Amino acid sequence: MERAACERLDRECPLANCRERFSLPEGVLYFDGNSLGALPRTAAADIDRVVREEWGQGLIESWLDADWFYLAREAGDEIAPLIGASAGEVIVADSTSVNQFKLAASLLRQSEGRSRVVTERVNFPTNIYILEGLVDLFETRFDLVLAEPGDLAGSIDNDTALVVLTHVNFRTGAMHDMAAITAHCRERGVPVIWDLSHSAGAVPLALNQWGVEYAVGCTYKFLNGGPGAPAYIYVAESAIAAFEPAMTGWFSHANQFGFEDRYRSAEGIEKCLVGTPPILSLRAVMHGVRCFDGLAMDDVVRKSRRLSELLIRLVDEGLPGGSLALASPREPAKRGSQVSFRHAHAYPVSKALRAANVVVDFREPDILRFGIAPLYMRYVDVWDAADALVRVMTTESWKAHMSDTPDPVT
Amino acid sequence: MERAACERLDRECPLANCRERFSLPEGVLYFDGNSLGALPRTAAADIDRVVREEWGQGLIESWLDADWFYLAREAGDEIAPLIGASAGEVIVADSTSVNQFKLAASLLRQSEGRSRVVTERVNFPTNIYILEGLVDLFETRFDLVLAEPGDLAGSIDNDTALVVLTHVNFRTGAMHDMAAITAHCRERGVPVIWDLSHSAGAVPLALNQWGVEYAVGCTYKFLNGGPGAPAYIYVAESAIAAFEPAMTGWFSHANQFGFEDRYRSAEGIEKCLVGTPPILSLRAVMHGVRCFDGLAMDDVVRKSRRLSELLIRLVDEGLPGGSLALASPREPAKRGSQVSFRHAHAYPVSKALRAANVVVDFREPDILRFGIAPLYMRYVDVWDAADALVRVMTTESWKAHMSDTPDPVT
Repeated sequence: MERAACERLDRECPLANCRERFSLPEGVLYFDGNSLGALPRTAAADIDRVVREEWGQGLIESWLDADWFYLAREAGDEIAPLIGASAGEVIVADSTSVNQFKLAASLLRQSEGRSRVVTERVNFPTNIYILEGLVDLFETRFDLVLAEPGDLAGSIDNDTALVVLTHVNFRTGAMHDMAAITAHCRERGVPVIWDLSHSAGAVPLALNQWGVEYAVGCTYKFLNGGPGAPAYIYVAESAIAAFEPAMTGWFSHANQFGFEDRYRSAEGIEKCLVGTPPILSLRAVMHGVRCFDGLAMDDVVRKSRRLSELLIRLVDEGLPGGSLALASPREPAKRGSQVSFRHAHAYPVSKALRAANVVVDFREPDILRFGIAPLYMRYVDVWDAADALVRVMTTESWKAHMSDTPDPVT
Repeated sequence: MERAACERLDRECPLANCRERFSLPEGVLYFDGNSLGALPRTAAADIDRVVREEWGQGLIESWLDADWFYLAREAGDEIAPLIGASAGEVIVADSTSVNQFKLAASLLRQSEGRSRVVTERVNFPTNIYILEGLVDLFETRFDLVLAEPGDLAGSIDNDTALVVLTHVNFRTGAMHDMAAITAHCRERGVPVIWDLSHSAGAVPLALNQWGVEYAVGCTYKFLNGGPGAPAYIYVAESAIAAFEPAMTGWFSHANQFGFEDRYRSAEGIEKCLVGTPPILSLRAVMHGVRCFDGLAMDDVVRKSRRLSELLIRLVDEGLPGGSLALASPREPAKRGSQVSFRHAHAYPVSKALRAANVVVDFREPDILRFGIAPLYMRYVDVWDAADALVRVMTTESWKAHMSDTPDPVT
């Protein structure tokens, strides 16, 4: 395929104009929107206004006058349609890790007689770590089970108290069948918490339709909420009444400013709040999510798959010897919005790509990860990145980076 | 005392120039810096740069290139001298409520054989709520005791597993003798967590000297970190090695980007991190804390007390009939940086003051609260506010606000 064909695909793309919604650096091919999404064009001026006017001039009164009190819920209501949820089922708060803790602590406390907490060994590590700490807090009541790939369904039985899974694997992009696994769990009376961090905004999600009751996710990847932007938490309307928060801060009190000396939980999704939200970062989330305004998720998903397939095909063609092994599933429906390759020297390869102005992620131990952000990524970007990758591999320019050591990146 | 005398005090004040470090609204007497501190003059341009350049242009690489990874620790190191702590003992993360949960969960898990968790009924409610949820999580292992005023020392005994106290009471401004209570607890082998939210930046704090091992606090009051800015957590150097985090997220892993499938805790204060920090809000904290650069805390404390005494004296003189009862201790060393009055109709009085451009807090059920922020508050501001208060009371203009209902404010 020629580059000109990609230019034509860009011209014909129904999302072609979405790129204008973002402010992007010149001359960089950015394949890391699944680590940190791009800056929405509307964000900077508004955040500056929040700082100078709402904080500087309005001061304490902006909690009401500028709706700071309602931002967490407003942002949740904007995220809801992107994940197949309804208004009132999602709220923005804390980090993904803290939200996992909040949901898991509450569900384990309510668990009766079951002893196994199941997750996958290949889950994003913070989810495992959070469960380790929590299981330890419950002393001998629960055991943590790290299911091996392929063993997940068999690990879930009538003694399972909780299942915690990430929808899209951060290394390979392999995507679980959320509807099937959720049904499998519910048949056995097992609650499941889904981590949507690598899903929301780029893959099909129908939480209500799939019977999902609990989920968390971050807003700084495909939702473009900004660095470290607060995460969200979802509890289905059908589950919220029975849900009893374990981390009971004043923002989830039924009468927060009554300053009562005993806790009484709010009724709705506000149950999942704890402390005061970071307003500057929270405001940025609104801009990130609003980049999806007016878009059909079908178009977003279709473009994600086409871009991904194009990358796989160009690498297949350009490196016929198989010097890079595809780590992601070939079947589009089983793959999130990323394409990962395995290489024994994936880190030096990532550095050589960076030298060619292609930003990708290296993930321990051997993963080269291309995030596909369909709102601002063009077919020609994929063509150019594949071209750079083929050059790096065929010229072995990555060998010049053999002595580099991995940097931390989120 | 005449207003001219206050003008002279302002001219002679060693902190007179500090007001220039803030951007304040014209024509408003702001006595709510203990709810939301004022905007540091340097913050807006820098946050705009963080958004446009670090996020917009630097994207994922700003985690290293712009030091995002180290901000939480850098901000903690800047806070440390303000509370009598050393670099490496403080880190900025999450909300005050979540930090309370993190410390209390870890300390209770490590507790051996003791059953009582003690706090005060008059503590800031979120601290009580957090403990309620946590005690419930431990099932029958602990009981929560809400000590009544005057009963605190007697409530702490050899069966006490943990004490959680706020240094300065949010309603009255009454300030605990932190050194004495900490010593009382340590003699009985009881860990204490101090909440410094209403203290840091305005009252004397010498955590190391007083033998304090654990503390939390918010940054959006006297530290001027911005709306909902992330909070901080302090663990003394002498206590950090034995401290085992209960909320074990990836940001506290000894090898975060090794993505190991088992948790191993970092060694230092980074143990207290959990998830990804909200960078925009975290950057604002740096500006807030740096407003203290070059100031002697003695000067800050002295000015806080003089402003407070002036307010008490002017109200005493202006309202000799005692129509407002002082709710705060008269003795400066027993009072935080606020002056509170009781009145049966405190809410209408606060609204009448707002109509006279004086911003104060109402606190349920009957408290009118004047926050004293010595970095940007002038003696003339106190004179003008007292003058307005005397007018509101003597003209009974507050009666026009009798039908107003309380708004939520943080």
